[in-house]
Amino acid sequence: MQNFSFYNPVQIEFGKDKENHIGEYIAKFGVKKVLLMYGSERIKKDGLFDKVVASLAKNGVEFVQCGGVVSNPVLSKVYEAINLAKSSNVDGVLAVGGGSVLDSSKTIAAGARYDGDVWDFFIGKASPKDALPLFDIITLAATGSEMNDGAVVTNEQTKQKYAFSSPLVFPKVSVINPELMKSISKDYLVYSASDIIAHSIEGYFTASSHPELISKYIEANITTIIKTTEILLKNPDDYEARAEFAWAATNALNGTTYVGVENFSYPNHMIEHSISALYNVAHGAGLSVVMPAWMQWYKSKNEARFSRFAKEIFGKNSADEGIKALKDWFEKIGTPTKLRDFNLNKSSIDEITKVALEHAKAFGLADIYTKEVLEEILNLAY
Amino acid sequence: MQNFSFYNPVQIEFGKDKENHIGEYIAKFGVKKVLLMYGSERIKKDGLFDKVVASLAKNGVEFVQCGGVVSNPVLSKVYEAINLAKSSNVDGVLAVGGGSVLDSSKTIAAGARYDGDVWDFFIGKASPKDALPLFDIITLAATGSEMNDGAVVTNEQTKQKYAFSSPLVFPKVSVINPELMKSISKDYLVYSASDIIAHSIEGYFTASSHPELISKYIEANITTIIKTTEILLKNPDDYEARAEFAWAATNALNGTTYVGVENFSYPNHMIEHSISALYNVAHGAGLSVVMPAWMQWYKSKNEARFSRFAKEIFGKNSADEGIKALKDWFEKIGTPTKLRDFNLNKSSIDEITKVALEHAKAFGLADIYTKEVLEEILNLAY
Repeated sequence: MQNFSFYNPVQIEFGKDKENHIGEYIAKFGVKKVLLMYGSERIKKDGLFDKVVASLAKNGVEFVQCGGVVSNPVLSKVYEAINLAKSSNVDGVLAVGGGSVLDSSKTIAAGARYDGDVWDFFIGKASPKDALPLFDIITLAATGSEMNDGAVVTNEQTKQKYAFSSPLVFPKVSVINPELMKSISKDYLVYSASDIIAHSIEGYFTASSHPELISKYIEANITTIIKTTEILLKNPDDYEARAEFAWAATNALNGTTYVGVENFSYPNHMIEHSISALYNVAHGAGLSVVMPAWMQWYKSKNEARFSRFAKEIFGKNSADEGIKALKDWFEKIGTPTKLRDFNLNKSSIDEITKVALEHAKAFGLADIYTKEVLEEILNLAY
Repeated sequence: MQNFSFYNPVQIEFGKDKENHIGEYIAKFGVKKVLLMYGSERIKKDGLFDKVVASLAKNGVEFVQCGGVVSNPVLSKVYEAINLAKSSNVDGVLAVGGGSVLDSSKTIAAGARYDGDVWDFFIGKASPKDALPLFDIITLAATGSEMNDGAVVTNEQTKQKYAFSSPLVFPKVSVINPELMKSISKDYLVYSASDIIAHSIEGYFTASSHPELISKYIEANITTIIKTTEILLKNPDDYEARAEFAWAATNALNGTTYVGVENFSYPNHMIEHSISALYNVAHGAGLSVVMPAWMQWYKSKNEARFSRFAKEIFGKNSADEGIKALKDWFEKIGTPTKLRDFNLNKSSIDEITKVALEHAKAFGLADIYTKEVLEEILNLAY
């Protein structure tokens, strides 16, 4: 185990009815007025917005609202919301929605306390020195954003889908109620499963050493996602399955499976960001296309690790069988495994490669992920 | 999964050389003068004390010291240290040692900010409203105290070995350097293994429901402890084994394996506390005597769970074989499995039962753990 620091101060409130206490949770921090960020108007139709507003009112917390955050959230919306936060003098931010809403809100929370361009944080030009306190009710279990300090936003103009992180944007309180996730479409359920598996495998395969204990935690997360996804596809009302899916999602990217390891990277995310920056595909869908291809390419660097994956996750006897089993499982649950599934033709590979080369620099992966390597992986993914 | 709240703000600094930065970690919190608590003079002989003092000095942190904390820490020492903390006007507490030193320090941190008798916290008469910031360098991986907010202290006069907990006494920073744990005696290594397994199995067996994901985390912790203990008995210098042992110990009682479960209890600890309150046996040694006996008695309440334990931990086919395998393993590594091993005769059972009945009330277990039940378990343990 390599040296590490671990710090995660997020207060998790997990379970039924927790969203009705959001006002209490916020008021405890002395916050008087929040910017309430959300995505589509769905939360107004299904009653969640009303519950939130009622709880805020009950606890003396005012709010201004800003909807319209999209999947693969964009910088223009973040700028709009930062202006609203500043002009409305809010002293907190409340995100109600999925990872896109929360990542936008982390960016807004930091940007609202910064005089410069918040994109500076994403390109390494500056780092946040202050941020508004942040709270969330996460309605989709996928990104793990509810228990980490990272955010991903797309700069539409430059086609850069980059990230920043800062302990200042750990949510103070995250509400995770699996019942609020029930109405998720089948597509988004399976894209989420793909995202969570990607969070698990990036470190699992790329780290330079692998503590046994951490490997076991990762395998527990992956096998739980596989099992609960299959249950939920048949029975979306199964609360236990929904709850374990959600908690596995949170644990896949809250730092607990990234302790004691070094030199890991996120190449699957790096490549996927390039695809969704260009074509706006769902993040999880892009990942299920990239992962089997990347694994095929990466396998020879650490065949033993892939053999372990095959055995522990799928009960298979070889690295190749394990990779095939994952790809087959993605197809079985209905998330794409080929670039072709996005109605892209072969010329897209050049486009994606160009954008990926730039993302590779930002992700610190330019030495390994050269034009040739990227083309090879994308051809395998085609 | 039952509803839950999870909050753990401890900053972990794990690995080689981390103790040399303790002064920095403390100074970052604005602390100017600490009460340095420790156990035996060992840390003065092996150089750790000097490293700590040097780091404090380098970072402008003064200190007063108080040694002599014993295993199964006692209230009289806590009172002495609280007086010293108050009279020396410290604004922080630094524990350097094992769980006994840290638990004492949690109590001191809270007691130094309380005008009443700190034992009030242990008997439910009051709860802490304030506490000095607390820091630690944990030199023995067993109790998990470095990443939780609980403390156990024995009131020597009343023979009560009770606990209190408060988020105010979460350490701000815990340093875990496996290299500092190398010189632990073989006895304390195996007692630690027993303690960590007890932390794992209390909830694993007694909770009213068992999320699959959490069961897998617990099994990962237990199998890691078993494997690394065996390695360390042969090769105490194996850093990787020492590190994974330590991190499994931390995870066994930092709350991550107690989320989503209800109605669990700590009967093994309850009974063990009674034994060590009377006879001052090592905590882990008492636990390895209690556990197989308790499991034998408890088994019929949830035979399926014990079958799972047998299979997942030892590859055995029945509940009974699993319990025997654990007892055999304890004997193999050299931690006691019979009350007789403490040179106690059969009359001790009456004494222990009397004290255990009182502890049962404090632990909320008096309905289940009656005189008859306790005698049955202790006879099985004899």
